[in-house]
Parts: sequence; C-alpha cells; structure tokens
Amino acid sequence: MRHVDVLIIGGGPAGISAAIWCKRLGIDCLLLEEQSQLGGQLFNIFNEIIDYPGMRTKNGIEMQREMVKHFVEMDCLYEVNTKVLFIDERSKTVKVKKQAKEQEICYTYLILATGSSQRKLGVPGEQQMIDRGEVYSASADGERLKGKTVAIIGGGDRAFEGAHLLSSKAREVYLIHRSTRFKAREQYVERIISNPCIKVMTDTEVTAIHGDRHVTSIDLESKNKEYKNKEYKNKEYKNLLVDAVLIRLGVAPNVDLIKGKVATAQNGLIVTDDVHQSSNPFIYAIGDSCTTPLFSSISSSAGQGAIVAKQLSSMLNI
Amino acid sequence: MRHVDVLIIGGGPAGISAAIWCKRLGIDCLLLEEQSQLGGQLFNIFNEIIDYPGMRTKNGIEMQREMVKHFVEMDCLYEVNTKVLFIDERSKTVKVKKQAKEQEICYTYLILATGSSQRKLGVPGEQQMIDRGEVYSASADGERLKGKTVAIIGGGDRAFEGAHLLSSKAREVYLIHRSTRFKAREQYVERIISNPCIKVMTDTEVTAIHGDRHVTSIDLESKNKEYKNKEYKNKEYKNLLVDAVLIRLGVAPNVDLIKGKVATAQNGLIVTDDVHQSSNPFIYAIGDSCTTPLFSSISSSAGQGAIVAKQLSSMLNI
Repeated sequence: MRHVDVLIIGGGPAGISAAIWCKRLGIDCLLLEEQSQLGGQLFNIFNEIIDYPGMRTKNGIEMQREMVKHFVEMDCLYEVNTKVLFIDERSKTVKVKKQAKEQEICYTYLILATGSSQRKLGVPGEQQMIDRGEVYSASADGERLKGKTVAIIGGGDRAFEGAHLLSSKAREVYLIHRSTRFKAREQYVERIISNPCIKVMTDTEVTAIHGDRHVTSIDLESKNKEYKNKEYKNKEYKNLLVDAVLIRLGVAPNVDLIKGKVATAQNGLIVTDDVHQSSNPFIYAIGDSCTTPLFSSISSSAGQGAIVAKQLSSMLNI
Repeated sequence: MRHVDVLIIGGGPAGISAAIWCKRLGIDCLLLEEQSQLGGQLFNIFNEIIDYPGMRTKNGIEMQREMVKHFVEMDCLYEVNTKVLFIDERSKTVKVKKQAKEQEICYTYLILATGSSQRKLGVPGEQQMIDRGEVYSASADGERLKGKTVAIIGGGDRAFEGAHLLSSKAREVYLIHRSTRFKAREQYVERIISNPCIKVMTDTEVTAIHGDRHVTSIDLESKNKEYKNKEYKNKEYKNLLVDAVLIRLGVAPNVDLIKGKVATAQNGLIVTDDVHQSSNPFIYAIGDSCTTPLFSSISSSAGQGAIVAKQLSSMLNI
C-alpha cells in the first residue's frame, strides 16, 4: 500500500499552500483533488481579487493559474480526478477512486482542506445564471450594479451585509428571505430595517430565475405576512423584475467524509486548535472546512497552510 | 487631535496586509512605520522566497516592492519615518515623532504589527558580514553552502534545525554555543549529538568574525569543557577557519512600547485570542509580535492581517 507522511485532501488555496509549505520543509506529501483541476473555490470568484497582499489578479481563474504554477514549479505531488471515498482513521488509510480504479493510501498525518460549498436555491434558471458568470460580490461589484435592481436572497450576515453595501449603489435592493426570522446579527438587521432604500420581503420564496442572456426577473411565492413593526407588507408578487440576483444562503463546510470521526461545531465546522489539529491527533484541518465564512479568505487559508506544515514538520521530526 | 478608527503600528507584511484589508473593507485606517520604507523584516531576506503561495520572488526586496505597490495602489494611508514614542491605552492615544515634530493620534482600535528583531552577537565583523549580504537560510541555501565549512551560533531550535539541514550539504558544520545547556527541544539535540558530521562546541563564545570580501574565520574563546557523553572536546581554538556564519541566537518580539499594558507570555510574545485581540479589548496584535518564530512566515502574517481587519470591520459595524 502506498504510504505518505502527509496526505492533503482538497486542492483549493489552503491545500495548495499546505503542499507548497510541506515541499519547502522537505515533508513527503501528496495532495488529492476530486475535480479535474486544482483551485477549489477560486473558480467561483469572478471579480478582481484585491486582498491577497502583494498580488492582485483580475479574477479567481488568474489567481488559480498563479498558485498552480507555483505548486507545479515546486514539484508538489498531486492527483486530480481523485475522489476520497472513505477515511479509516483507525488504520490511518483512505480509500480513493480515480477513473473507476480504487486504491488505498496510508498516511501518518492527514490534512483536511475540503473547503466549503455555497448553498443553492435549487430553482430553475439558477445554474444557467451562475454558468453565465452572473455572480457578484457586494463589496467589489458596486460599480457593475450601479443603477440596477438587485435581489439578495438570504437571511444571514452576508445577505444583510450585501444589502447594506449595495443600497447606496443600486437603484433598488430587495432582500428576500423565506422566513421571518433572521440568522444575521441584530445590529445588521436593524440597520437594514431602518434603511428606506431596501425592501425586505419575508416569508417569501424564490421559485425561478428568468432571463436568457442575463437575469430579467424572478418568480416569488409569498405568504403575505408582516415583518415585525415594519410597515412594508409583502404583496403577492408573482413576478419581480430584477437585473441581478445575489444568492446569500450561506456556505456549508464540506465535512461529510469526516463526520463522527473528528469533533465539529454546531455550524458544522471542524474544531481545531491554534496549530490546526482536530480532536484526532493525526488529523488536521485548514481553510473553509474549519474557518467561519466571516473570517475566510485566500490570505488566511494560505497562512493556515504554512502553519500546519510547520507544525507537521516539527511532529515528523524533519 | 487626529482620530482614526484603526491605527496600525508597523509596516512589515502583517501591517501591510492589515492595511490592505482595512481599505478593502472600508475602514478608516492609518499605518505608522518608523523606518523610511515599508517592508520590515523583508529587507533581511536575501534568499529566494518560495513559500508565499502564488508568488515567488528572488528575495525580500522584490517581495517588499510587490507588497508596497499593492498597498500604494489601494491608496492605503501611511506615514514613514514616524516613531511611536508612547501609547496611552487609557485615553486611546499614541504620541508620535516625525522629523523632530511630535503629535498625538487618537484611535478606536490599535493594531500592533511591530514584528521582532534578530538577536545579534555584537562582535566585530558581524555587521559588515550582514551588510555584505552573507545571511543564509539553512533550508533554502543548501546548494550555496555545499562543500563549505559552516559555523552555526546558538543553542535553540533554529540553531539545531540549521545544523541538521546543512550537515548533508556542507563539508563541515560547527554548532557553537556559549553554554552547555541548550534551549532546543530534546529530540533536536539528540539528533545533532549523534550526527558525526556536526561538531558541537559548548561553553564557547565567538568574539570576532573576520573576512574582507567574505567570511574567512572566526575567533573563539572556549572554556574547554566536555558536553555530556560526547567524545568531542572543545580544544582551545583561538581561530577557526570557516566560510559562512549563521547566527541563530533567536528573535525577540518588539514589545517595548506595550510592556505592562497588555498581557505577554514568558517568551515576550503578546498573548492574543483567535481573532488577535490582546488582553486589552481595543488593542490587537498580529505578526511576529505575537507569533512564535517557529510558526512565523509571510503567509501567516498576511493571513493574520486579513483576520484582524475582518474582526474590526465587524466591531466597528461597517
């Protein structure tokens, strides 16, 4: 059976950083990626990246290219199209599948860099919208959305933060949430409720997104209730004309593989200590599988990769 | 009196990252740097930087150039040649001096990114050696030191790690320490003691470094003792011919400004929580002022800058 000192699952910025750092420190290391290319969530960034110190890129693809170039130049070992089917933490092996062929790999230390996934609405037109590149950042795309009618879907911090940021740019902002209870922190909610430029629609579900070349409208199903003391009532809109939809239903860490094997918090995140060790001393986690979305960034993922590799270098006595 | 929401002291990678992230998040922020240029310890990196994911640079100066370019393009506010004389944490003001002119700046939150300083031997020839660029990384400069005679000065982890890494490359490695007691962890010490390629000299002080264009020899004063069971005896070398000297006396965090005002650990590092808040809720610390040298890196400093800015954005309710 193949053995590696450090096995990394996931080839986003956290995994790439951990692999570069392992190589740098002389650690025998292998990275596994399920998709056909390394990069993870970088493929979902369509706006300019201005917050990775020293390196600005036009979008996530350009960042992906630079990171993979660095990774390949360093001769980091990796396998793409390789799905981890099962982690056996007792025998310290993982079962993987690559093109119908299964094999087992034995590790001394395992690094989970499995990232997180955006929750989706699951309605007609949503995937087409994403595929057309109509994916916006409320903080970076203010100019692109200037004068537009924007619908933000969700009830958490990021939905409210997005509505706040866009309220001074867009012509109209709708914040649409399927319940009357918000997960967002109180101060965020208050700020939005008192903002006359934002229409909050509660107890309302989006059932379809329309538009051929770009978003033109959304279908809504409303339960026609009031939100607290706010005067605005949800009318029984059947169809709402909008120019852009921002889906902010939150992200979920990708932790299915490790469920029940290491401690996770209520929000699903893997619990780690300050050197990124999980509750199992041979399993570490970095990046969005263990970081709250509020603190997630390419910079912090890269930093965590450095820290975990330095920690393992010292554990492996290299 | 001038007021800023976030005042950053120190313009190394951690401070630069925090400033870029504050700007990105719309925080009113000012960075103060004592030296005439931003960059901090980047100026002390003479070898290739291969471990900042996505961006390889020939040396620290090139990294400094890229980071400062990004910082300036983002229109981050800063002052160089500006020394912080005093922090009054009760009134939340700092007294600064720029070209003989003193002024006070009031902050809502303070970020300490004051870094750390390499301890020096303080012997003749040392500064000239550094100024000539004869500063090596044991992990990155194996090829440059191949076949050479190398003296490593110090008794901590980094001295022992350096000796181990170079023992397979250099012709001869001397590890020279002024005491018989080592701070390095036991497993590191054992590995070196049992390595026949490394000559350990204890109770020995370096009193001078010689060489005009490059290091040629060092002067030693030895107390002529034995180290534990090791057969090698320190002879009374007066002068030892060497090609390179690696000073590994450790680093000390730059925390004089804040002594007694926030909690520090025994090693002098500022104690922070996972969002980098110190024991004072209005003072945060990032980078080498709060990170053990073992885990210090440009990547982790950049990551910490991102996290602290995100935290302060949420505290400031931006």
